[in-house]
Amino acid sequence: MSTLYLAVIGVGGVGKAFLHQLHHLQTRLRQRNPPTHLNLILLRRSTTQILSSSFQPLDTSTVLDQLHQSQQPLLPLPELLDYLHTAPGKVILVDNTSDQTLAASYPSILQKGISIVTPNKKAFSDSHALWSDIFSAAANGTGSPNNGYVFHESTVGAGLPVISTLKELVETGDEVTKIEGVFSGTMSFLFNSFQPLGGGGGRFSAEVKKAKDLGYTEPDPRDDLNGLDVARKLTILARLAGLPVDSPTSFPVQSLIPQELESVSSGDEFLEKLPQFDRQMDDLKESATKEGKVVRFVGSIDVPSKQVKVGLEKFDASHPIAALKGSDNIINFYTKRYGSNPLIIQGAGAGGEVTAMGVTGDLLKVVRLLR
Amino acid sequence: MSTLYLAVIGVGGVGKAFLHQLHHLQTRLRQRNPPTHLNLILLRRSTTQILSSSFQPLDTSTVLDQLHQSQQPLLPLPELLDYLHTAPGKVILVDNTSDQTLAASYPSILQKGISIVTPNKKAFSDSHALWSDIFSAAANGTGSPNNGYVFHESTVGAGLPVISTLKELVETGDEVTKIEGVFSGTMSFLFNSFQPLGGGGGRFSAEVKKAKDLGYTEPDPRDDLNGLDVARKLTILARLAGLPVDSPTSFPVQSLIPQELESVSSGDEFLEKLPQFDRQMDDLKESATKEGKVVRFVGSIDVPSKQVKVGLEKFDASHPIAALKGSDNIINFYTKRYGSNPLIIQGAGAGGEVTAMGVTGDLLKVVRLLR
Repeated sequence: MSTLYLAVIGVGGVGKAFLHQLHHLQTRLRQRNPPTHLNLILLRRSTTQILSSSFQPLDTSTVLDQLHQSQQPLLPLPELLDYLHTAPGKVILVDNTSDQTLAASYPSILQKGISIVTPNKKAFSDSHALWSDIFSAAANGTGSPNNGYVFHESTVGAGLPVISTLKELVETGDEVTKIEGVFSGTMSFLFNSFQPLGGGGGRFSAEVKKAKDLGYTEPDPRDDLNGLDVARKLTILARLAGLPVDSPTSFPVQSLIPQELESVSSGDEFLEKLPQFDRQMDDLKESATKEGKVVRFVGSIDVPSKQVKVGLEKFDASHPIAALKGSDNIINFYTKRYGSNPLIIQGAGAGGEVTAMGVTGDLLKVVRLLR
Repeated sequence: MSTLYLAVIGVGGVGKAFLHQLHHLQTRLRQRNPPTHLNLILLRRSTTQILSSSFQPLDTSTVLDQLHQSQQPLLPLPELLDYLHTAPGKVILVDNTSDQTLAASYPSILQKGISIVTPNKKAFSDSHALWSDIFSAAANGTGSPNNGYVFHESTVGAGLPVISTLKELVETGDEVTKIEGVFSGTMSFLFNSFQPLGGGGGRFSAEVKKAKDLGYTEPDPRDDLNGLDVARKLTILARLAGLPVDSPTSFPVQSLIPQELESVSSGDEFLEKLPQFDRQMDDLKESATKEGKVVRFVGSIDVPSKQVKVGLEKFDASHPIAALKGSDNIINFYTKRYGSNPLIIQGAGAGGEVTAMGVTGDLLKVVRLLR
């Protein structure tokens, strides 16, 4: 029998779905021979927390309700980490936030022997210095085997096996030459409906409004349209492919926010004024249609020339990127071994359940390595 | 520092590519901190072997040449396993054969604490009893943690992450409802060129001959056309999805060998007589074209109704299975979490380098678990 200790931060869409999946996983692991006990000892959100004072397991099925009624004040992060460090076994931190401060602490968390699984892109797409510090500390980087492991599958393509596949290509000695794809569920939806394969679609501003109404965008749609989310994902993949990209703003990223609307005060005002700029996007759509092509918002990494870029591109109707549906992501890996036909991974790249699945899958990997 | 011992059997196309990749991996692992030494102590083929008598490492870059000059007689399998069992550390057996006898010994090999990585489909697609025995013995099944681990990514889709993805879907609690795809590089090539998207293509017998000339078929093309290879892969996936399929002959498998030619004496005679049966395939192609569809050789698993089948089916031009190129495989996972748009994995599903990549990737997983 082995016992591992789990500290979970963040109870948004992904965090809630994760708790549900965790309950299922705990049951599975307890039934194995020998059983592994995955004891939840912390659930924390931005304002409050539930912390087990004696490392006794919290009840995963009711802890979320308890948290919402809790008045327990937040222990400052350094003190919390010191406390977790005293657990009577290995500790795994699940960071289901997009918190920059927490991300900046990953190197010291790993050095305390605490493993991390997370969909938090900030840690891996900010400065290259933070990236280096994380993987110099991680036991699955170049850190001591007594340090923690770090896994972050859900930072790109949610639960799709994108990061694990790229790592395996590199680690088994393949040469990745190019990575190209649609990396944002929001952008995928927008362009699949603005210019679906076979024509049609409404005006761009109307599609943005529809996407927002369906809950496919951030509260302020500019947070999707500025391209930064895709740039962060490209930064992560480029680094894994061996390019030491400085930051997500160190390569060309096309923003779909008209310059005149960058500084309007609210997302609502932005949506109201966006129709004034539909002409530009219509022109682009028409020119693509004339060439028998469609417009898509893609990211690409050309490894030999070290070029990373994010923006609008035209694709032939026969290209897999043109045939994308709904809010699916598609990622094409071109490598020496795979030749002219890429290794392709496609499917839902956003949503609480599939993102949490990537986190739960990573957790299972760490459990196997620790027990 | 840790040292692991590696015994490799089989030096065909996959075996040769694996040795090349192993050399690269050994270098990488030696450079890590702390270093892991992956000592090759056996290379064996059907007629001879090179066995390190004192567990000193063989030179991976020259051992293949040595094997071809070797007169060292084969140690019988039971004695060989007893010898490996005395190694001064953990042993991993890489089975790059399609040997049924070796496959039947997996349970006892795992019980000796020896781990197995392999593209050998026989072990996982024969009787359900052998499957159960293997996973009751494996440390990553329900066996003792002191037993060996078993990984077999390359048994389906070569190096594509098919098995690992399906396992993760199941283990994280998703509900797989349907798996559908093109699972044979040979069949993919045949039908992509017999009836490519947009029409064209030659007569069926001519395409079979072309495929054979290009080296895309087995020496006797009937070994591809009988559908058994695809049936074996479907058996493996169905079992992983929770269906206790009896054997690869326990569900409907359509053979493309005309009944009259099943018993002709040679592959050459078969190819000579096949044109007499082109009419049937032409009819099928014409009827598909009339419906705006194309014909493909697919396998599918419907989990709720427990139906597994392999054979020809028609697909709309807009379906991803219709758009396949070259000898690519495509695998669609329909699950509760992924909803109406499946999780899709696509790319080369045959060939020495990509199959060996799946083996090398599995080896790396075992190394991480053992060191």
